[in-house]
Amino acid sequence: MSDNDLSIRIDLASGVRIGPGKIALLEAIRSAGSISGAARSIGMSYRKAWILVDEINHVLQRPAVATEAGGSGGGGATVTPVGETLINLYRAIQTGARRAVASEFQAIEKLMREEADAPE
Amino acid sequence: MSDNDLSIRIDLASGVRIGPGKIALLEAIRSAGSISGAARSIGMSYRKAWILVDEINHVLQRPAVATEAGGSGGGGATVTPVGETLINLYRAIQTGARRAVASEFQAIEKLMREEADAPE
Repeated sequence: MSDNDLSIRIDLASGVRIGPGKIALLEAIRSAGSISGAARSIGMSYRKAWILVDEINHVLQRPAVATEAGGSGGGGATVTPVGETLINLYRAIQTGARRAVASEFQAIEKLMREEADAPE
Repeated sequence: MSDNDLSIRIDLASGVRIGPGKIALLEAIRSAGSISGAARSIGMSYRKAWILVDEINHVLQRPAVATEAGGSGGGGATVTPVGETLINLYRAIQTGARRAVASEFQAIEKLMREEADAPE
């Protein structure tokens, strides 16, 4: 019944953080082909998605997301090779970390109350 | 010059998250001997600290923090053995994860702009 999970966040010296939210946004842009479509698909506001994309692009040497000025339907957006590398490395870090600490993670789970037994 | 860092968050099925903030609070309670002193030492409001302690205690089978009704000086608080175990396991997870993914982490760092070169 364990849906407990471990998430990873990269805290850059600049103060910018790259965690599950930003990576999910990049993956959604890859699927949707636009920032507006990506935002919609993960229930994020368009404004918030733009701010996060801008933050990601700004900390990288080369942008993770390339946007095209749009016609009537709004512009498209694609994940660049650098963006793909970032996604892949993040996912590798997540998988590697989960595997490395599986036993400690199980030990923490044992300290927790069972959902079914919890009051309220 | 790398002050980049990796932080770990445990996402419980109940929706509660245990990450660097809550663990730092537990460690501060251990040092300060009270929730008010701990909150002060990490720049957190007393109210916020109480809410987090309550959340931590509620998800565990046995509380991580024990409080004593206070006299004129306010009540003290101590970290219980369960709380100590939680801190130690979290720190072990953090160390283990960092060690396991060091090379992927370095690869992500190489995608990043150097602080000194960043505009603004």
